[in-house]
Amino acid sequence: MEVDILTEISVPTSVFDGKYTTNWEETFASRTHKMASSIIRELLKFTVHPDVISFAGGLPAPELFPIREVREACEYVLANYGPASLQYGPTEGHPELRRLLAEKMQKYGVPAEEENILITTGSQQALDLVGKVFIDPGDYILTSEPTYVGAIQAWSAYGARFLTVPMDDDGILIEPMEKLLQKYKVKFIYVLPNFHNPAGVTISEERRYKIIELAARYGTFIVEDDPYGELRFEGKDLVPLITLHKENVIYLCTLSKTLAPGLRIGWVTAPSRVINKLVLAKQGADLHTATFPQFIAADILGRGLLKEHVRKIRRVYRERRDVMLQAMEELFPEGVTWTRPQGGLFLWVTMPEKVDSERLLEKAKEEKVAFVPGFAFYPNGGGRNCMRLNFSNQPPERIREGIRRLANAIKAELRG
Amino acid sequence: MEVDILTEISVPTSVFDGKYTTNWEETFASRTHKMASSIIRELLKFTVHPDVISFAGGLPAPELFPIREVREACEYVLANYGPASLQYGPTEGHPELRRLLAEKMQKYGVPAEEENILITTGSQQALDLVGKVFIDPGDYILTSEPTYVGAIQAWSAYGARFLTVPMDDDGILIEPMEKLLQKYKVKFIYVLPNFHNPAGVTISEERRYKIIELAARYGTFIVEDDPYGELRFEGKDLVPLITLHKENVIYLCTLSKTLAPGLRIGWVTAPSRVINKLVLAKQGADLHTATFPQFIAADILGRGLLKEHVRKIRRVYRERRDVMLQAMEELFPEGVTWTRPQGGLFLWVTMPEKVDSERLLEKAKEEKVAFVPGFAFYPNGGGRNCMRLNFSNQPPERIREGIRRLANAIKAELRG
Repeated sequence: MEVDILTEISVPTSVFDGKYTTNWEETFASRTHKMASSIIRELLKFTVHPDVISFAGGLPAPELFPIREVREACEYVLANYGPASLQYGPTEGHPELRRLLAEKMQKYGVPAEEENILITTGSQQALDLVGKVFIDPGDYILTSEPTYVGAIQAWSAYGARFLTVPMDDDGILIEPMEKLLQKYKVKFIYVLPNFHNPAGVTISEERRYKIIELAARYGTFIVEDDPYGELRFEGKDLVPLITLHKENVIYLCTLSKTLAPGLRIGWVTAPSRVINKLVLAKQGADLHTATFPQFIAADILGRGLLKEHVRKIRRVYRERRDVMLQAMEELFPEGVTWTRPQGGLFLWVTMPEKVDSERLLEKAKEEKVAFVPGFAFYPNGGGRNCMRLNFSNQPPERIREGIRRLANAIKAELRG
Repeated sequence: MEVDILTEISVPTSVFDGKYTTNWEETFASRTHKMASSIIRELLKFTVHPDVISFAGGLPAPELFPIREVREACEYVLANYGPASLQYGPTEGHPELRRLLAEKMQKYGVPAEEENILITTGSQQALDLVGKVFIDPGDYILTSEPTYVGAIQAWSAYGARFLTVPMDDDGILIEPMEKLLQKYKVKFIYVLPNFHNPAGVTISEERRYKIIELAARYGTFIVEDDPYGELRFEGKDLVPLITLHKENVIYLCTLSKTLAPGLRIGWVTAPSRVINKLVLAKQGADLHTATFPQFIAADILGRGLLKEHVRKIRRVYRERRDVMLQAMEELFPEGVTWTRPQGGLFLWVTMPEKVDSERLLEKAKEEKVAFVPGFAFYPNGGGRNCMRLNFSNQPPERIREGIRRLANAIKAELRG
């Protein structure tokens, strides 16, 4: 006779209600008290309303997702690999996907083999694993200011301290970087080489060489975070830092901006000794990245469909960037400046000192438009008169209208 | 004019080869030096050979995976939710899946709402997040011995120390548990209530009440890890600990053993104050669990297909358990004993003291059969004459043959 699932349990009244309740606040680890929610994720609650125009998220344009290709991949994978695509898999990742990504890295001039590739649950997990494997409490991480908010969040949990270096249109500045390297023992240098999140700028080729040289001279290594590199709209692709010194760079990338973020597939390229440690950390973190999405991605990459798809994304995002730049030119008041990214998803707006972008956000919400205030990207404070704008997620007419609303809010704030 | 992706880069010779190479060993965090690979994952390299009969993994029977249901779900989800199923999603999880899982918990007598549910990247991530949120280095975790190897791995990374309590056929022993609670400040008690991994035993109803009482009396809380609860072959379902004291239990579950592990979907049920902190930790860890598998799972659960499917799994696994028990009865030598699980995937074998199961494994490999040596499940040492056997992943005739080979290896070891 078979029993049914938990239908025959006689459920008693809870035995301890009212007698003892854990004071949860007292049980949390010290690191937990430092955990803060990303303002971007918090803003989601406001930006879900369809009448709000959001420049806040880092979301790809959903109408470009390759639904047909994913559907074909699901069919093919289930028909041909069925059980294997739903079973536990190796922590390192689906071998075929690792092979395809190693090939991709080889095109960048990186002599990567399968053993140099680890599949991660999105690039965010790669940041977390790097933190877990390398950061002792108090360690210094050298990065640009502003810098990627997800890296701040991941590494703060391991007790990292941040040393920040300003940027210009050619990326992170070399001289202040060297001064910090002289003064502090730095665990690693964190760079976003292409179409920086949030700043939108790209590190020039000359500076890439200099960063590589500085890291080696001061005995540290580089974490190169490159989610947007393939989304260049114009100009010449620049050599990745890992290509310049493969033994000293941990390179992070993702399919989130080129294929689809909902598959949560990122990857790390690094020396095999580093990959081995990241694998150990990943075993404890989630055993492995979801198998089925890895098979889907391997099928789409294997059929060579991603390249054509990326071409389409670049065309659409370029137009949206142009629309945003044009609208800002026309509508933003005097004294407001911004970056002009050659690719990616974001640009960075600097307003007169008197404008506090967190206060501005309240006004903007009334106008039903959203952005991310600059302070979120400054681990040590600052950036209060700045904001990040995303141009990938809204169609052109909404971008124009959103910039119009935002311009009104800025003007009101400047008057107020 | 459009540029092609990174095809025009003139790749220079690496600038620093031979001049500077990071000594990676010196850069790792202290916690990294303590990270060890799970012997189970290491065994995978041996057990992939098709002529090896493996009782080592914790793999579900792949021939039972609901391929047709998953295919239908893929079609339905892509046709009806298309872009949303491939886009970024909330850290807490897909709302519809959270709602369905809250409903499921309500059937267990737990008044859970959506706000009490967090979707995780497999149960393993839930263990990791619990560690991140609660464990300061040196904290004591009270658990059975043996205990789940993935919990040891996840929590060791946060510097946990383990206090271990022996078990009998009714689960973890109450008296030694209380002695430890008197002596040590325990961060939390970790229990696997049903068909324990690796021991195969189930905590009796009486002991469940006692554990709840002890936790409250000594001011600590409980982490209840229940991946196998639905896989009961016979006997009566027992009330989950969370039902007895919902304010003091963090309950972990997964779809890996009932639907498919390759989707990597687990969930936590806990007071909302705890969920909120786990959400913060998860933001930094991987932003959110893969969206597309969550939509697939929500579709299959929503159509009520899981219940019927679980019935099939229970039927098949019960037969396999019976075949394994029968074969051991016939073939294992005198002095070897084992547990008789009423469900789940594993049983636990205890051999005469003189048998070292790690050495036995070498003999077993020659016979082309594999298991997990007991020491892997003892965080403080011990269990060397024990082993864990999995009975879900092999068809009956392979189980019989595998036990025959294993019996030969044990006999040889007893002689040697």
